[in-house]
Parts: sequence; C-alpha cells; structure tokens
Amino acid sequence: MIVVMKAGATPQQVEHVKQEVERLGLRSNVIVGTDRTVIAAIGEKRDGAKEALEIGDGVEKVMPILAPYKMASCEVKKEPTCVEVLKLRVGAGKIGVIAGPCSVEGKEQILQVARQVKEAGATGLRGGAFKPRTSPYSFQGMKEKGLELLALAREETGLAIVTEVMAPEHVKLVSQYADVMQVGARNMQNYPLLEAVGESKKTVLLKRGPSATMDEFLLAAEYILKTGNPNVMLCERGIRTFEDHVRFTLPLTTVPFLKQTTHLPIVVDPSHGTGKAALVHAMALASIAAGADGLIIEVHPDPEKAVSDGYQSLTPPAFQKLMTECRKVAQALGRTM
Amino acid sequence: MIVVMKAGATPQQVEHVKQEVERLGLRSNVIVGTDRTVIAAIGEKRDGAKEALEIGDGVEKVMPILAPYKMASCEVKKEPTCVEVLKLRVGAGKIGVIAGPCSVEGKEQILQVARQVKEAGATGLRGGAFKPRTSPYSFQGMKEKGLELLALAREETGLAIVTEVMAPEHVKLVSQYADVMQVGARNMQNYPLLEAVGESKKTVLLKRGPSATMDEFLLAAEYILKTGNPNVMLCERGIRTFEDHVRFTLPLTTVPFLKQTTHLPIVVDPSHGTGKAALVHAMALASIAAGADGLIIEVHPDPEKAVSDGYQSLTPPAFQKLMTECRKVAQALGRTM
Amino acid sequence: MIVVMKAGATPQQVEHVKQEVERLGLRSNVIVGTDRTVIAAIGEKRDGAKEALEIGDGVEKVMPILAPYKMASCEVKKEPTCVEVLKLRVGAGKIGVIAGPCSVEGKEQILQVARQVKEAGATGLRGGAFKPRTSPYSFQGMKEKGLELLALAREETGLAIVTEVMAPEHVKLVSQYADVMQVGARNMQNYPLLEAVGESKKTVLLKRGPSATMDEFLLAAEYILKTGNPNVMLCERGIRTFEDHVRFTLPLTTVPFLKQTTHLPIVVDPSHGTGKAALVHAMALASIAAGADGLIIEVHPDPEKAVSDGYQSLTPPAFQKLMTECRKVAQALGRTM
Amino acid sequence: MIVVMKAGATPQQVEHVKQEVERLGLRSNVIVGTDRTVIAAIGEKRDGAKEALEIGDGVEKVMPILAPYKMASCEVKKEPTCVEVLKLRVGAGKIGVIAGPCSVEGKEQILQVARQVKEAGATGLRGGAFKPRTSPYSFQGMKEKGLELLALAREETGLAIVTEVMAPEHVKLVSQYADVMQVGARNMQNYPLLEAVGESKKTVLLKRGPSATMDEFLLAAEYILKTGNPNVMLCERGIRTFEDHVRFTLPLTTVPFLKQTTHLPIVVDPSHGTGKAALVHAMALASIAAGADGLIIEVHPDPEKAVSDGYQSLTPPAFQKLMTECRKVAQALGRTM
Repeated sequence: MIVVMKAGATPQQVEHVKQEVERLGLRSNVIVGTDRTVIAAIGEKRDGAKEALEIGDGVEKVMPILAPYKMASCEVKKEPTCVEVLKLRVGAGKIGVIAGPCSVEGKEQILQVARQVKEAGATGLRGGAFKPRTSPYSFQGMKEKGLELLALAREETGLAIVTEVMAPEHVKLVSQYADVMQVGARNMQNYPLLEAVGESKKTVLLKRGPSATMDEFLLAAEYILKTGNPNVMLCERGIRTFEDHVRFTLPLTTVPFLKQTTHLPIVVDPSHGTGKAALVHAMALASIAAGADGLIIEVHPDPEKAVSDGYQSLTPPAFQKLMTECRKVAQALGRTM
Repeated sequence: MIVVMKAGATPQQVEHVKQEVERLGLRSNVIVGTDRTVIAAIGEKRDGAKEALEIGDGVEKVMPILAPYKMASCEVKKEPTCVEVLKLRVGAGKIGVIAGPCSVEGKEQILQVARQVKEAGATGLRGGAFKPRTSPYSFQGMKEKGLELLALAREETGLAIVTEVMAPEHVKLVSQYADVMQVGARNMQNYPLLEAVGESKKTVLLKRGPSATMDEFLLAAEYILKTGNPNVMLCERGIRTFEDHVRFTLPLTTVPFLKQTTHLPIVVDPSHGTGKAALVHAMALASIAAGADGLIIEVHPDPEKAVSDGYQSLTPPAFQKLMTECRKVAQALGRTM
Repeated sequence: MIVVMKAGATPQQVEHVKQEVERLGLRSNVIVGTDRTVIAAIGEKRDGAKEALEIGDGVEKVMPILAPYKMASCEVKKEPTCVEVLKLRVGAGKIGVIAGPCSVEGKEQILQVARQVKEAGATGLRGGAFKPRTSPYSFQGMKEKGLELLALAREETGLAIVTEVMAPEHVKLVSQYADVMQVGARNMQNYPLLEAVGESKKTVLLKRGPSATMDEFLLAAEYILKTGNPNVMLCERGIRTFEDHVRFTLPLTTVPFLKQTTHLPIVVDPSHGTGKAALVHAMALASIAAGADGLIIEVHPDPEKAVSDGYQSLTPPAFQKLMTECRKVAQALGRTM
Repeated sequence: MIVVMKAGATPQQVEHVKQEVERLGLRSNVIVGTDRTVIAAIGEKRDGAKEALEIGDGVEKVMPILAPYKMASCEVKKEPTCVEVLKLRVGAGKIGVIAGPCSVEGKEQILQVARQVKEAGATGLRGGAFKPRTSPYSFQGMKEKGLELLALAREETGLAIVTEVMAPEHVKLVSQYADVMQVGARNMQNYPLLEAVGESKKTVLLKRGPSATMDEFLLAAEYILKTGNPNVMLCERGIRTFEDHVRFTLPLTTVPFLKQTTHLPIVVDPSHGTGKAALVHAMALASIAAGADGLIIEVHPDPEKAVSDGYQSLTPPAFQKLMTECRKVAQALGRTM
C-alpha cells in the first residue's frame, strides 16, 4: 500500500501514519517527494489496513498495490482451470456451449429444445426453474417441477444441466438435479448464497453483476473458492451503462483481461449481453474470437410463445447456423469446439 | 403498449401482430403513419405481453405506456406514507434521522455512539451485525452478539434499531431484535429476501442497488408491499458511474422524482453515497433541501479505529454540527425535524 | 509516481525501470515488498513520464501521486476566486444567479424575460444565440441578431449577458456582446476553443462534459487559466449514466468536492442537470444547500412555445418562487444572495 | 410520436394536446386506454414537435417513433457504402486497416512505421499532427511539419493518410495533406467542425464520443452527410463506464447494431477502446468476427519511447502477427482483407 499525504501534512501527521502502518504489522518506508510525502506500507495485509490508514489526519489517499483476491489469481495458480461436467468442458483450451430456453415451460418444450441444441453441438442445457424476475407480477418459474423436467432432458440427451439457484435454502434441492449451479447477476454479491453453492461442491457458473468491477467479480468467485470448491466458471453477461439501444453493454474486453488475471474459465452470455436476438450471432462469434472458453445462449423452439425472454432467444435453426460459424472461427484460431 | 412496426412491414405482419394483441386479451388499434405503422394495445396487462409482442415478425420495438408497479405508485395511493417505529418518524412531512456505526464492534462502542447520536437528535440507531463484505477476508460482523448489543442500546436510549439482514434464513432471528430491517444495496433484487422481510411485518429500509433504475427500485418495493407489509422506506445510497473521485455518485434528483411517483418515504444515505467523510455534511444538507424524508448517516466515536467504513464516518461532534444545520435548512423550508 | 512491477519481475526489469525514471529527471527509490517491487519516482514531472514508464517490461501499472492540474488547484491559490461582471458576483461567499431562455427567440421574448428574472433577483441573463444542437434539423439560433438582442436586454436591465460560443472563429464576434462566454458541455475538450476564449480575457463559464472526470474538468479549466485569464466559473450540468428517468444525472457531490480542490467558483445548472421542469426547484435548493456559488436556470415566458428546451424551463412565477426559497436556504446557512 | 397523458388528465387537457398536434401540422388520433389516454401524432415532423408537446399540461411523456436521422439511415439508402481512398477500401464487404503511431514524432519514425504497417497489410497510415491532449502540459503535436512528414510517407508507401483535425480553421490546411480527416471523440459534437470537414469533401473518419448514444452518433454523421459529402466512416473507440480495469469499455455490439441501422461503414479502434497494448490483439480479432468493416490500430516502432499513448501501441512484429490472425478470422467467415 502507498499512503499519500496531503500537501502541507505536518511531520507529526507523517509520524502518526508511520506508527499506524507499523501497528498494523507492516513495514513503513517514508519517501519525501517534491510536493508530497508518501509512505510505503510493506507486507501482506489484505483487509482493513487501507481503511484504517485512509482516515488518518493529513492523509490524502491510500493506493493498494496488491489485488484483493488470492485463490482466483493466476499468480497463485498458473495453469488454467478446466471445468468438466458430463460432456461439458470449459477452459484450458476447451470451448463449451450451454444452450436452452430462459425458462423451463413444460416437458415437450424442454425435451425438444434439448435434442435440438445437442444436435447443433451444445454440451450443456440451460433452463430456469427458479426465476428471479424484476416484477413480482412476472412468471416465477416451474420450481421443482422444472428441475424434474431438466433431469429428464439430461437422461435423454446426456447434456449437463445448468440452472439458477436463488437462495441458500434452495441449494440442497437444486443440487439434487443440477450439474451446474448458476448464480445470477442479481445475486453476484449474495454472500450467503455464494457460500452455500460453494459448499454444495457442485460446479458453479457465476454471472457478473451488471455494475460489478473485475475486483468485485473475482472476490465473489473467491467466496466460492474459499469453501474448497474449485469448480467455478465466470460469466460475462453485460453491464449497465448509458447505452439505450441494447439492454446491456457487452464488454468483451473482459475476456482477454480475465485470461491474463485469473485461471478460471470465462463464458460469455451474448443473449443477456445484448438483449436482442438479432445481435446475438455477431457477438457470439466475437466472443470466440476474443478467446472465450464458452458460450451460454438462449434458444427457444418458438420464441414468440416463450414465457420469458423470447425477444433475445434464437430459434433452433439460427442456433445451428451460429454453431457452424463459431466452429469456423475457433478453428481459424487453432482452437477446437 | 405501443407496438412500432418496421418500415416496410407487410400487411400480413401487421395483421399477425394485431391478432397477437387480441390473443393477449387487449384491444388493438392500428395507426398507419407516414413511415411506420403502429399498433396501440389497450387494456391492463402488465406482464409478458411486451416480450411476446416484441418478438413478432416485422416488429421494431414495443413501448410500454404504464408503469410496471402498482402498489408503490402514488396513482394508487395518493397520500404519502409515514413510517413510524418507536420515535422514528419518516415521511408525510416528518424527517427522521438514523445514525450510528457501520458495524457493531462491542458494548462500549455501540452504547456510547447511541447516546451521542440521540443527544444530537437522531431517532434511529444504525449498526451492522451481519455484514455483507466485498471480500471474504473482511470482518463479517458480530452476528447475533451484535444484535443483542443493539437491543441493549435501544433499551437504554429508546432509539429504533435499524440493521441489515442478508438472507431469508436470518430474517426470523434479526426480526427478534430489529425495529427496521435493512435490505442492502447488493440485495435489492434478492427476491426471496424481499419476500421474507415483507412477511416479517417489520418496517423495511430498502436500499437502491447501485445500478438499479427507478422502475427496478419500485418493483423491488412492490415485492415487499405485495406481501401485505406497507411499511417500506426507500433509500438512495448512490449509483455506479464513471466518476472516480467518489465511491458512488449520489443522484439526489431521485428525491423529487420519487416524491412525484410514489407515496413511500425517501431516505438518503450520504455516507455510502459519497464514500468520504469530508463530503457527507454538504450532501446531507442538500438532501434535506431536496425534500428527503430522512437521513441515514455513519457515525463512529473513533473513525480511525473503526473495523469498517471509518473513512466515511463522521465523529459525534461533526454529526452534532450537521444536525444543527439540517434543522436550520428544514425550518427555512417550513419543515420540522 | 509509483511504478508497480509485476509479481516475478526480474532484477533486470527493475533496474531498467529505475534507469528510465532517472533518464526522465526523477529520483528513484526502489522498495522491495512481499509480493511486488515498487519504484517511487520522485520529483515534479507532470507530463509523459507516466506513459513512458507504463510501457516498460515487467511493469504492472503506474500510479500518479500529484494532481495533473496546477493553476486551478487550491494548493496553488488558497483563497477562493470571486468572479465579478457588472452586478453578477459568483464565488468567495457570493451566490450569483443567471437565468433566461434556452434560445433568444425575438426582441419581445428576451426583453420580457430579462425584466422578469431581474425582478426575481437574477443578476445574469442567459440566452443562446449560437446553438449547438444534436440534430442538424433543429433550430440553430439567431446568431448575431440574437447577440444584438441580448445587448439590448443588458442595456435595459443591467444584467450580465451569458451566452455560448461554439467555435474559435466566433470568439471575436461573441465577445463584443457577451459579458460571460459560455463553453458548452459538448465543447469542454475543444482545446482550440478553450484557448480562444481564454485569450479573449472575458469571463468564462465552463460546463462540465457529460462524461468528464474531475481531473479532465479541471484540466480544461487549466487550458483557459494558462492563457492568463483567471476569470473562470465551473458549471456542473449533469453526467451521462444509466438512469433513464432524467435526461442527465446531476451529481451534486461535485460541489463540495470542488470546493475542497479548486479556488474557482462552482455554478450548478439544474435545468440541464435534470431535464425536467418539475425537478428543477428541488435541485436548485439542494445546490445552494450543498454550497454552490451560483445557479444557471432556464426560464421562458411561455415554455410550451419555446423553440428549444421548453420541457425544462421554468415559468417566471415559478422562478420567482424558487428565488424566494433559495434565499431562505442561503440565509439559514449564513450566506447571502 | 405518441403523447402519453397523465392518469387523470382532463378532457380539456387532452383536447389541448390534440390541437397542439394539429397546429404542428400532424394528424392526431386519440386512444382512450384503461388507465391512460394516449394521442398518436402522425406525419413526418422530426424537429421541435416532441419538445413542444412534452410541456403541455397533463402530458406525462412523449415517445418518438421515428429515428431522428435520415441520410445516415439504411432505410433511406439500402446498399452499404464503401469508402475508397487510394488503396484503402472500407465497407460493403471490404475490410480496411489503418495503422500507425499516435503522434508523428519525426521523419525516421513515421517512414519506418509506414513501411512496417504496409508490409503487414495495412492500407491506411494514421498519425497525429494536431493532437488534442487532456492536459495543456502534454505534447500538442508537430502540427504542419507533421502533416508534411505524413505526405512524405504516403509518397513512399502509397498508404492513405488518416489524421485528426481539431478546429474549423485548420480544415483547409489539413485537407491539403490528408486523405481522411479524422474527427476525434472529443469533437464528435463540435458542429462547426463537422460542417467544415463535410464541406472539404474529403473522406471523414468520425469517432464516437465516449458518452454518445447511437442516435447522437448518427446525427453527428448526419451533419457531415447534409453538406453533400457522402464519404463518412464511423468509428467505435470505446465509451465511459464504471469499469476501472480498462481506459474505456469497448462495446462491440455497436458493430452489428450499426450494420442493421446505417449504410455507413464501421471501423473499430481497439487501441483507444481498451487503452492497453496487451488487450488489443484479442479485441481486434473480436471486431472482425463481429463484422467490422475496418480497424484502426496504434503501432509504434518503440512504444517505450513514444511521446504519447505508448502504453496502448503495438510493436510492428505484434501488428504483423495480428494481421495474420485477422485474415484467418475474416476468411473463416467468408470475407477478405
């Protein structure tokens, strides 16, 4: 940490901060500059120290040097993590595709779409049974019945089931059916939930919150990793910005940034990340070109009749076409999917 | 709802959308314009219809006319709601002030600060026992022990206790001690939690998520109201923007906007809303001038030693001075506090 | 500046950076930490050094210590600046109010509104003659004819004329009529324009760009100050964020932040800062309470007939009422206007 | 346009708005809904009408149906525009690459890099002679001398010269040397400049402002097109958001969105769009996969010694490698470059 003193800070104030640094178990190194004195605080101390120093008299600001996460960092674990569940493989060179409807709506719907996305090359099936909805008047999901139908679809197709869990008290139930537990964007900082899915030992797909920084995103992953569960996929699904021609702004730079920062695999969700079916194809291809380890895409047999998110769902033929082109881009760059 | 067709939409596409509108139980009214045809869909239908129509062939966009919330709207309940718990009164002309430390840290700390903020004029005491922390390595709160200390402080001072609850399974425990259940910004869209606090029948302080729109904020309140619990205070605590000289951008326009939109009272949190103690005073005064029904402010007897958020906490004398000036602004505008 | 080396940076890389620091005329101080080596670069060097060091092998990031502006800083000039033009006084304890229509539309309109805003207590008259419009199909202003009408209004009322200048080649013309040259939000980083208004020696009202940081805002002011023109007012007029219930988010924390950072006076524009007439009153009061040195407010005798920005203009009676309440808030806080 | 009345608007208010609509030369169609009355205003009227109606008594909001731009729209001109200057071809299936240093620094530097980027496959050479710099203390460019060196580089290599123009009074000078006039992000809404470059009849590269919406971006292009100059390339270069691990957020969804909205070609600038050399490669590939018509990339023979933007510049070998992979992605998707 670097503590920057205000211009005109007194020697007493500098000495006080120096002592505070040492009280916190760190070594201090006072550097007198032209306009400012700064105090380097040396040692491994990730929590609370910044805040304690920031409040000191005469302190202008405190700049941390170290990233706040550890287990998620590629400094701690250099080789990339590959998540494997059934035939779904994501990371360390493997590209996995998870596809399916926003919500499980019925037996025919989910079985039909499962067959179609498998046929096109997906190895995971998404489908919501517990649905977090912005409005209390919206369809809230089929709940356990939906989970049963997902399990049926797995039985028939072998696809890994990816479904959202919304509350710690649902973790036990959902983990009986799901292969991958999705933590949604709204719950990225729901810490009791992160701990509960971590302890389930199931693979977790952690979606970035729409206003989360990279540090916050990786710290949320750290909550899961800290429970001893190493099977975490990160998912970029778009952020809140001023842009009004899309539902969310999809910042694909997240992909190369995370590849240089963490060993965890990165999945992109171009369906939520754009919010419009007509934009999904281009952004899925761009995700692969940017280096993504996986895609998660909404596909519905009849988007117009979907109970949720139809406007951003691909039809099965559009998905098939997308997969064909994704494979071409992957191959062009020496990757396989 | 207004369905806008693409330029060049065919008569068949228009007819199809017209039929869809009617299938959804709405009346349709086709308006042929110079460049575009639009179809007005008339009737009360708040869920799913927009999405279903949006996906139709030839549809460019669907524009909703009605607000998506009902019970929170001042169209439904015209008179402003006043929340009353012990001596804390917020709304309908009353200005209530909730003050106290970020975290409960011990008996002496919480009792001392409770006396001090009461002395200065606060009628509510804030203090975290269950702490949502961005990093898993940060102090997570004293949990039940903290709740007990808060109850002790209430016993001595009569201040209403405001404390955060982070998970549905904690609601029962927290509601045994708290007078007001705070739902934090990270949990604004944690729907199982919203329903659980609603059902507790306790008064709820609902903080705006840092990237929530007004519609999303009011829909989150609607989740609580829908359980039959009318005692909801909304709290503006700052949003995520590109600004880098503050922790959050505090958009005070929220206050007059909500006064014109909802009957629920609006509290402002200038401590989180700025993230810097030196900016809290000015923004608290501005909140009162903008028409806020309440303030929630971090006060710590010794900010430098605080286990969390010391950098944004006022000292008790600074808080006392702030209260004096707030009262002057309130009086100048014909309000009392 | 603090140069942070990557974990695992080699001694050669550290040595190379050390030499670069010295090549740039700075002193170096190498600090070997637990996980990282950092190199403090000591000395006054505000330009280019950061970029040159950032690119070095093994460098993770470079963190500047000093603010990039000088003449705008309250470290350089401690006493607050008061801008005075005719009876308009802004800063150093004086609160000045500039009011008037978005656009000058005709003789009757501008004279009438000038009398009305003067009567209510304004000491400056705003009115656009050269109008920057988002669409090329919108009214572009009365140009020189508009300037003549503004001069006429000054002659009759004594109000200081505040009007926008959009291009360096207009500066000469506009400065013949205007008392205060406004640089609009879209032009905050139009450097040739900043230099030209600086050289005109007229007082400048510099509006914050809707995505400008405080550093960028103060550096834009620095471009003007550097020409030798000290008469600069800063104006907060709202920023671009995800909020969709207002045209811009008005971040009033700018006011106390700038009061602690610069000696230049701060004016708030709640008309553009909200974009809705119904929100202006509350935000103008809040601006005064937050410590603003001035207000600039759109007032039109008949907003419904305004050629631009009618939706955010107050009527003269509404403005009069606002001024009355602003005075009460100012007095309550020991200030006069 | 759709005028939405407030709940409880009186018949008189509705009638008044109806008359206003007709006064503006539009047809009116009153639709009485369950909770609200809306009035459709039919006819082609793109300016001022929205604002005039918005201010009417009892009006809640006005929702435009038509896009505000015309000549930029692919409804008006269906076939995509291909910009051609020397060997640079951008749009209508052609992918053009513009590369070179941030600033022209000297004869050797610019000639060397011109040869290198040409060798790698670029057909345009970028290089700043007039430099808009955030700080007045930063290097401001070689000005006319820089333009002469760019012309020399064109003479030797045949590359089309792309360079920025910052003020209307520089247009004449710059157009004597440049093949493509760049309007920078800070000047996207500098309307006198847009008109001046339009009238120069040179090809224009228009960069998106960091907080511009798509409507604002296309309206800025419209200012140029309206002068009779059809040769406009749009350039996405990143937007201002809360993200702090990049200099700007690069929203690649702009590419497919604009392909569906305008006939103008879309170029992506991954150098400014990320602000970090290590992220440029992945984002350039992603741009091509997303359908971009061109790239503009900073390349410097010795980034560490660059006078500006070295941290985001590729070395010539890195650029060569990038071009090889870009070609592979383009070919995989059936495009050539």
